[in-house]
Amino acid sequence: MVVVGTGLIGTSIALALRGHGVEVLLTDRDQAALAMAVELGAGTALPDGAAAGPADLAVLAVPPAAVAVTLLDAQKRGLATAYTDVASVKALPLAQAAELGCDLSSYVAGHPLAGRERSGPAAARGDLFLGRPWALCPAPGAAPDAVAAVTALAETCGAQPVTVDAAEHDRAVALVSHAPHVVSAAVAARLTGADDTALGLAGQGVRDVTRIAASDPRLWIGILSANAAPVADVLEAVATDLAVAASLLRDGSEGAAAHVADLLLRGNAGRARIPGKHGAAQKAYATVTVVIPDRPGELAMIFQAAGIAGVNIEDVTIEHSPGRPVGALELAVAPEAAETLAAELRARGWSVPG
Amino acid sequence: MVVVGTGLIGTSIALALRGHGVEVLLTDRDQAALAMAVELGAGTALPDGAAAGPADLAVLAVPPAAVAVTLLDAQKRGLATAYTDVASVKALPLAQAAELGCDLSSYVAGHPLAGRERSGPAAARGDLFLGRPWALCPAPGAAPDAVAAVTALAETCGAQPVTVDAAEHDRAVALVSHAPHVVSAAVAARLTGADDTALGLAGQGVRDVTRIAASDPRLWIGILSANAAPVADVLEAVATDLAVAASLLRDGSEGAAAHVADLLLRGNAGRARIPGKHGAAQKAYATVTVVIPDRPGELAMIFQAAGIAGVNIEDVTIEHSPGRPVGALELAVAPEAAETLAAELRARGWSVPG
Repeated sequence: MVVVGTGLIGTSIALALRGHGVEVLLTDRDQAALAMAVELGAGTALPDGAAAGPADLAVLAVPPAAVAVTLLDAQKRGLATAYTDVASVKALPLAQAAELGCDLSSYVAGHPLAGRERSGPAAARGDLFLGRPWALCPAPGAAPDAVAAVTALAETCGAQPVTVDAAEHDRAVALVSHAPHVVSAAVAARLTGADDTALGLAGQGVRDVTRIAASDPRLWIGILSANAAPVADVLEAVATDLAVAASLLRDGSEGAAAHVADLLLRGNAGRARIPGKHGAAQKAYATVTVVIPDRPGELAMIFQAAGIAGVNIEDVTIEHSPGRPVGALELAVAPEAAETLAAELRARGWSVPG
Repeated sequence: MVVVGTGLIGTSIALALRGHGVEVLLTDRDQAALAMAVELGAGTALPDGAAAGPADLAVLAVPPAAVAVTLLDAQKRGLATAYTDVASVKALPLAQAAELGCDLSSYVAGHPLAGRERSGPAAARGDLFLGRPWALCPAPGAAPDAVAAVTALAETCGAQPVTVDAAEHDRAVALVSHAPHVVSAAVAARLTGADDTALGLAGQGVRDVTRIAASDPRLWIGILSANAAPVADVLEAVATDLAVAASLLRDGSEGAAAHVADLLLRGNAGRARIPGKHGAAQKAYATVTVVIPDRPGELAMIFQAAGIAGVNIEDVTIEHSPGRPVGALELAVAPEAAETLAAELRARGWSVPG
């Protein structure tokens, strides 16, 4: 296996493959990034020029605009028998590859739906793709062997392969990823002019809405530019909804308020359509809240008590209290197990509010 | 202490006070909500008509539009010697109270910055205010005793009292709470028309951006209507930024892309201004990732190992893998403790990638 480009995604794929004992050859124009990836155990540097023979698969983990030229170069060098990429957009690289005269039978466009706010090989993780969707957009003439090789790659990384048309993929990610990114940035951008008192009143809501606004702008401008029309469509629709909501709020009549409430109701409906962590419909867990001293060993005792009660913890959130030595621990469990867990923890002396 | 209104916030305050042994009398026009709050241990029902004598403090936990009339009624009945409310907007209730001829010396407007996507007394939690800011907006003529009583209420609930001018408060919450709410709804609303394939590609980003879009529209339309102008100001600015970004993306030139990148950079800057969970600047924790089988007892053993290594876990995230029996556990720890923890866990046989 060859990985071209040792950024966050390329290095994470390499680490995942190494974890399964796969030999990985790495290459990057940025020698520092390549050295870091090698040091992290992601593989060995591809010898200058080319490998001994073609690899089964070459993963082109380069920015969207660089996919087609990198593919052409790799195919000219006979780097592998099959090729894929990991760019967040698919129609543009495919069109450019066709235009450049790349061999489209050995190329299967791909996109693992995973990322972090941090970038570069140092942020890479072999488990980045665990349970995530991995879109595959084979062109009509793609060789079955190439499709099989890329499907196996996704599965080896622990992801779920999803075959989808390139244009459909691009419209989908504009909606569920690219446009939300710009909107998050636009909300966060408003905070640059705020005073410290205002920011001191920030709660969890604005933190969640603006979390992805911390992402790398250089990376994202490449993605947005390569998927410009579908992203612009969504942004225009959101901008219109917000401008209309603003003018309805200024109107102040009850009829106007009802229209704003309508947008909130549509928001409820849209939110409910996002599948849960387990891939299916959102599973409703019950939450058991425990007040805990912020010290080593406390969580171990609580999880031990849960184990003794035979209760499986599905999710955990810790809410710290600034300047105080206690926090609130939220344990998500199956609804039928909540009472058992609460009783067990209370019996062992923890405070489990009502 | 009297709590008027046994919804999420009123009942949560009552539960927090009961946790400190304070006597709480509850009242609500909705008899079912009142009965539920009493059953949850939030206090006893206020006897019909009035209490035996005035309470030290009455908390009016009613919607923004109902604060002034509820205050007038409570003052006429001599319910307490001091009054506060918990509405998410402050200028409108204060203006309405003055207009109705309420006694503004015994009233200190308040707003605990806490909430949940769920509402009603059943969702109430005594720890809801732990570590959260609690805004106080005393009018110029407010009695020092009344200010002290409301400050003590916030502190008893574990919150941090923050004194702020009412108009300034309203502009601040428009920016850090109300407008982000509408924006979250507008992004989520786009998902109503999406097909299942598109939704299957949804990652953590859109989940975070749309989390608060699951909130109760009836509650929120009241808040937005009562803070209409400041919210509209923010929404218009966001709508303009998004419409401009859309048109720049369609333009497609490098100069246009640079302008979009500018918005992303402003997003970075705004996001970085939000204080961290501990109230001060965001503390950088290191993350140790462990691959775990999804079964009871596993977390207990990991936290036990952390305790033995003397490492305090600051935060926990569990990433499930759909259809697979393993997940990724992310442990946030002090940067200097990360290596110790990783080594301890590896020595005990867990897989701690790179």
